[in-house]
Amino acid sequence: MDSFTTVGSMLEPLAHIGRDPKTGGYLRDSWSDADLELREWFAGEAARRGLDLREDRNGNLWAWWGAPSPERPGVVTGSHLDSVRQGGAYDGPLGVVSAFAALDLLRGRAVTPSVPVGVVCFADEEGARFGVPCMGSRLLTGVLSPERALGLTDDDGGTLAEAMRRAGRRPERAGRDDETLADVGTFVELHVEQGRGLVTEGRPVGVAAAIWPHGRWRFDFRGRADHAGTTGLADRDDPMLPFARMVLAAREAAQRRGVVATVGKVRVSPGNANAIPGLVSAWLDARGADESEVRGLVADLAQAVGADEPGAGPGPGPGGVDVREESWTPVVDFDVALRDRLARVAGGDTPAPILPTGAGHDAGILAAAGVPSAMLFVRNPTGVSHSPDEHAERADCEAGVVALADVLEDLCR
Amino acid sequence: MDSFTTVGSMLEPLAHIGRDPKTGGYLRDSWSDADLELREWFAGEAARRGLDLREDRNGNLWAWWGAPSPERPGVVTGSHLDSVRQGGAYDGPLGVVSAFAALDLLRGRAVTPSVPVGVVCFADEEGARFGVPCMGSRLLTGVLSPERALGLTDDDGGTLAEAMRRAGRRPERAGRDDETLADVGTFVELHVEQGRGLVTEGRPVGVAAAIWPHGRWRFDFRGRADHAGTTGLADRDDPMLPFARMVLAAREAAQRRGVVATVGKVRVSPGNANAIPGLVSAWLDARGADESEVRGLVADLAQAVGADEPGAGPGPGPGGVDVREESWTPVVDFDVALRDRLARVAGGDTPAPILPTGAGHDAGILAAAGVPSAMLFVRNPTGVSHSPDEHAERADCEAGVVALADVLEDLCR
Repeated sequence: MDSFTTVGSMLEPLAHIGRDPKTGGYLRDSWSDADLELREWFAGEAARRGLDLREDRNGNLWAWWGAPSPERPGVVTGSHLDSVRQGGAYDGPLGVVSAFAALDLLRGRAVTPSVPVGVVCFADEEGARFGVPCMGSRLLTGVLSPERALGLTDDDGGTLAEAMRRAGRRPERAGRDDETLADVGTFVELHVEQGRGLVTEGRPVGVAAAIWPHGRWRFDFRGRADHAGTTGLADRDDPMLPFARMVLAAREAAQRRGVVATVGKVRVSPGNANAIPGLVSAWLDARGADESEVRGLVADLAQAVGADEPGAGPGPGPGGVDVREESWTPVVDFDVALRDRLARVAGGDTPAPILPTGAGHDAGILAAAGVPSAMLFVRNPTGVSHSPDEHAERADCEAGVVALADVLEDLCR
Repeated sequence: MDSFTTVGSMLEPLAHIGRDPKTGGYLRDSWSDADLELREWFAGEAARRGLDLREDRNGNLWAWWGAPSPERPGVVTGSHLDSVRQGGAYDGPLGVVSAFAALDLLRGRAVTPSVPVGVVCFADEEGARFGVPCMGSRLLTGVLSPERALGLTDDDGGTLAEAMRRAGRRPERAGRDDETLADVGTFVELHVEQGRGLVTEGRPVGVAAAIWPHGRWRFDFRGRADHAGTTGLADRDDPMLPFARMVLAAREAAQRRGVVATVGKVRVSPGNANAIPGLVSAWLDARGADESEVRGLVADLAQAVGADEPGAGPGPGPGGVDVREESWTPVVDFDVALRDRLARVAGGDTPAPILPTGAGHDAGILAAAGVPSAMLFVRNPTGVSHSPDEHAERADCEAGVVALADVLEDLCR
């Protein structure tokens, strides 16, 4: 086996950044102090390798070996460094660390790439802070307008524009960036698997087939805040009840339609134990292989709670419910030729298994924007992700780096 | 009508303290900056009247006209200045402001009280920050141990002990305070009504009959945090589902048992839109005329969600639910002779109506500790409370002050 910078030694300096000492989970919101520290680390890794570091107008970081141009676009690999709240150590960072390690490996093999090779770190992939995932790649490709993105607010009511400005960035420059995009000839993202497909296959590394269509919807249930002791049941307009019915209806509809649906984020206002709430806001995440079933589930729920069609604008007055689509990503079928090439190169003697996934990724956004893109997955023994329990064995991570280096070498031959 | 400091002019300097400019609701957590500013205001009102200000070991403020002693205990009136989150302007402050105004009125009438007269501001009546209501009076009377109280945490994980220390208090001195309690011969609390009983009666002022037994329970639903897109429905342990079932079961049981039950505060952890939660914590508030029905409701719910009996200690492992009683106040029947005396004195020609209430108050805690206590209610046109919409008409507030002055004059004759 080639000698190279091990993934373990590279993940180590990140281990403390944004880590909640009580839970061991990570809190790496975009543009937070932790995020800025991770960006500093990325810059240091780029500098140590003599790579040319660029931050694009949307906060995505690019470290180039060789100078890309529209005439000679590069092969790019990488992922993201931000996390969901209380996330694990691998979702995102494994892809960035493996990108640098694979580049080291190519250099160790004395490969002279025929095109530039880039390592990317996308901004705000998880959407933990402002609610929209893949913000950096969505802005870059123009599927999300800067007007909408910059006005999104975090839990404290601050906007993305304010957060970027506080971090010394210029939000007025955010938006579609064809110049940066033209540098990317091919994109390969390595990611820890977020399921047990590779465990079933008995293989350390696989290739993505497609990303399920998926979306996020916000349900605002409005009621009337009042005293919990002195307001009779008949006089109440308690939004907690329709919210609870929505949660149960979502599970029922998901089962019936063969998709998955999750309510993982809830805000209750004012949030007093001794007061009926005035507002319950809940976020629904829904995904599945079949877009019409995912859309059908959301329509089922909107009907069950008595809302207008999602996105149909402001709903009824107090006591009603509004449903708004916060993000939607249609199915992404990765480039078939590229996918099969990766499976052959990454698999060694037997082609690597090709797996579907329910998780969204920046590679999906780039693929949808016409950039030939593909993904490598590294085995996750429990399948658990978005949790401090997320894990990948050291040997599998290193098999991932070797596979990624093989793929890059093949692509930039 | 006597001339006196009007309630309106006294409430005005408080109007901006802790007010959320977006909603108009109040955020007056105990020991917050807003609370400290309100305490300063109280000290200023006491000083302006030449009253002797004392803060007891539990943070309750006492302003005395005359020096009380165990041999010559005083007549005390007052309420609290903290608020629920997004609360109204009247719940608490009306009682404190009316207390000072009634004292002014007694002096205007040239009354020479035969016993000292005190104005009290109890600490942390709402329990908005640390979860236990009537903290100041519970500590004073010893029904809550200082060990338990001081270790209670707020949303940021800080303890009451830390919050008191940061405010320059000495939490190690908190606890049952017989010396302070011995100064209180009788306690009368004036409060805005939190229902529409006086609207129905067509009267501006009423008297409390009893406080319903009431309690607060915390339900911790534990599951396994995981990815919202890649975890199949069958592989999930999603605590949002049993939580939603509990909310609906609480309403059903409340209806069946003739009590009220409310879930007004929920914490979802980690709270990512794209992750199945690992923990959902929910607070249940339950009250009713009949203690056994309130207790029965909590037992119904514990059984419905598969918990051990509430308070039976740690429940099953991950995937289970724990139910803990955070507070419980048995029924409080106010002193009947005192109550009827108040109704006669406060009512003018026709005795004031006597009303039950579902709201807890410091007067209830004192009554349970053996201090002869009573309450006056001031009409609330909508009945809405614990909300920025809480209101009382100016004329009704002033009728409340006159009634309170009449009661105090009668009691300290």
